[in-house]
Amino acid sequence: MLKECINNVRKKAPLIHNITNYVTVNDLANALLACGASPIMADDRDEVEDIISICGGLNINIGTLNKDTITSMFLAGNKANQLRRKVLLDPVGAGASRLRTDIAVKLMREVKFNAIRGNISEIKTLAFGSGRTKGVDADLADVIREDSLDKAVSFIKTFANEAGCIVAVTGQIDLVSDGNQCYVIRNGRAEMSKVTGTGCQLSGIMTAFLVANPDNELEAAAAAVCTMGLAGEMGWSNMQPSDGNSTYKNRIIDAIYKMDGDILEKGARYELR
Amino acid sequence: MLKECINNVRKKAPLIHNITNYVTVNDLANALLACGASPIMADDRDEVEDIISICGGLNINIGTLNKDTITSMFLAGNKANQLRRKVLLDPVGAGASRLRTDIAVKLMREVKFNAIRGNISEIKTLAFGSGRTKGVDADLADVIREDSLDKAVSFIKTFANEAGCIVAVTGQIDLVSDGNQCYVIRNGRAEMSKVTGTGCQLSGIMTAFLVANPDNELEAAAAAVCTMGLAGEMGWSNMQPSDGNSTYKNRIIDAIYKMDGDILEKGARYELR
Amino acid sequence: MLKECINNVRKKAPLIHNITNYVTVNDLANALLACGASPIMADDRDEVEDIISICGGLNINIGTLNKDTITSMFLAGNKANQLRRKVLLDPVGAGASRLRTDIAVKLMREVKFNAIRGNISEIKTLAFGSGRTKGVDADLADVIREDSLDKAVSFIKTFANEAGCIVAVTGQIDLVSDGNQCYVIRNGRAEMSKVTGTGCQLSGIMTAFLVANPDNELEAAAAAVCTMGLAGEMGWSNMQPSDGNSTYKNRIIDAIYKMDGDILEKGARYELR
Repeated sequence: MLKECINNVRKKAPLIHNITNYVTVNDLANALLACGASPIMADDRDEVEDIISICGGLNINIGTLNKDTITSMFLAGNKANQLRRKVLLDPVGAGASRLRTDIAVKLMREVKFNAIRGNISEIKTLAFGSGRTKGVDADLADVIREDSLDKAVSFIKTFANEAGCIVAVTGQIDLVSDGNQCYVIRNGRAEMSKVTGTGCQLSGIMTAFLVANPDNELEAAAAAVCTMGLAGEMGWSNMQPSDGNSTYKNRIIDAIYKMDGDILEKGARYELR
Repeated sequence: MLKECINNVRKKAPLIHNITNYVTVNDLANALLACGASPIMADDRDEVEDIISICGGLNINIGTLNKDTITSMFLAGNKANQLRRKVLLDPVGAGASRLRTDIAVKLMREVKFNAIRGNISEIKTLAFGSGRTKGVDADLADVIREDSLDKAVSFIKTFANEAGCIVAVTGQIDLVSDGNQCYVIRNGRAEMSKVTGTGCQLSGIMTAFLVANPDNELEAAAAAVCTMGLAGEMGWSNMQPSDGNSTYKNRIIDAIYKMDGDILEKGARYELR
Repeated sequence: MLKECINNVRKKAPLIHNITNYVTVNDLANALLACGASPIMADDRDEVEDIISICGGLNINIGTLNKDTITSMFLAGNKANQLRRKVLLDPVGAGASRLRTDIAVKLMREVKFNAIRGNISEIKTLAFGSGRTKGVDADLADVIREDSLDKAVSFIKTFANEAGCIVAVTGQIDLVSDGNQCYVIRNGRAEMSKVTGTGCQLSGIMTAFLVANPDNELEAAAAAVCTMGLAGEMGWSNMQPSDGNSTYKNRIIDAIYKMDGDILEKGARYELR
């Protein structure tokens, strides 16, 4: 049950190591605290192996990668594998530059991930080795809609099998698959795309859910996606007439803070395919 | 008309490449989303040329420059010029250190900018090669007031001519000139100076306005300044008794999100000199 | 009197140089503005000596240290000492990695600090050269409670004597000592630990209080701690039913913005031991 997944995060309070971008890092930290986890950010090559050693999981986000942090991503990822920590990849902007595509693909080759989370254009870039990402947003032609859903589910299952890990694609409709089954999730609101960092927050939260539910990875990843989407709905319901995207950002994190197992179980809208 | 300038941003949704500081970067991203543009942040030398290639414009902000990002600023700026993308310089803290002054001046020499936006002390530093900036705020002796306005307008026109681009000086009174004409803008509130990053946000928004209004640069830059100032007024009108500068920050971005052409046209307070 | 300490910050508006982490930097900037100070962030080795020269104080925070910023911390710290500027160390995560512990200890050896502020696990790491920090949070076994208070006061006094500067340990109960006296402060709320960066904000504010009250360092540091804790209480009193940790973050900074000498004097809860 999804409720157990979030309850486990709150009970175990996992410490999550993040090598992430400087754009959304503060919101990521507060989102991790909001769901019951503890964040630590560290990206120097001389400390990332120490840091992952005291953490339950590692969240690698390439949103503002640079030559120094790239080195740290590989060091931390390999150490996490050695220590059997959970590791997640958020390939922000893969397809937008050769560097991002190459590093994301190389990370997939050299690090064993438990999950990869991105928008559909980023995931297609990983699957095909090149892409047409519109910056950090999904290309319109790629967007998963009801009429292209069957094809998308099939694509995600195939890619999850190839990648050997859970793949989560978020957008209008969210898909989470381990290669066998696929959660099709319809939580969230379109206005979330006007808030920077909801994807980055989700990747952090998903890492925490994986750590707190080690033997139930697929459901844990789906529970994280439902938590984020539902928080977007709850946050929106608290919006006042003069509120815009900046206040919405706060209300979404606030809603994660207020989320509990019962709210999640009741509000999650998904089917299994 | 100013209204067309913002309507074009919302219609065209330009993608803006930002090489910027890590202090205000999240607010910059949300402000760009709020006005209808899309942000991407990327500062590694190995990707900035790729990134500017898929973007409509480049916003260079030296707020926390370092040896690596300085290299990237020149690479991206030159590539933007080759590709005829719009480029804006925000010389944050020019005058506060030799490094900032030197890099800002060197950027002006080697990159062709469409606009430069700063406070009066920063702009004077660019004009005279040295300055007396009080950190990242304007020096009190420099502040443009009604009784020093004529002199300031004349200075900005001269400097815009020398620089060969639009120059926007923001403060109590804002000036935007292309060397011939000068918008004198009286939107905004003094309390905005207690919120970090409103200048950085404006530089990003201005880049988006320039991209979406390529043949109407002066008016586009002025429309961006009016949008930011008016958002400061609208945001303030929504303040509750216990609200302070942090909530004000959110309310300003919220107001940008709510801004449309008619609100802007009606609320903009400017004269042309 | 505490009230004079905050009044002096608002009157003198000290400029504070911060070499800090990218997680909480925006909140730090707004918290400094909220208390009446001016922030500047600069971490490149080629400018930190210039920047500290125009500032009243330096706040060194190792939260996301890297090889480049480490060099800058030593350069800026030494220059600050030469120029007799106030310098504060926030050893974020000392004990969580060998690098953080080593750099924090080395900074203490090579730079003369006016104050060190951290949680109890970080401070124990500095005192004993190794620690068991849980990431960036205090280890549960270390937490100062009423029944371990006498021992903690004695430890802090001893360590402040050894370090030759003010030591502030914040947590459930806050302790601020110069080696002779120790303020025992009971402001604040437990929910502040669910907001990232309140410690970082306090370190910045404390630097500003030290600069504005140069001959009254112990009381200034205690006043900063009371200000932050009281802001946490005031911010909480403004929470609405749907508000969570993200809105709480804003309300705390808002409360600093609203704080004045009389509110502080009346709300501060401390004893001297």
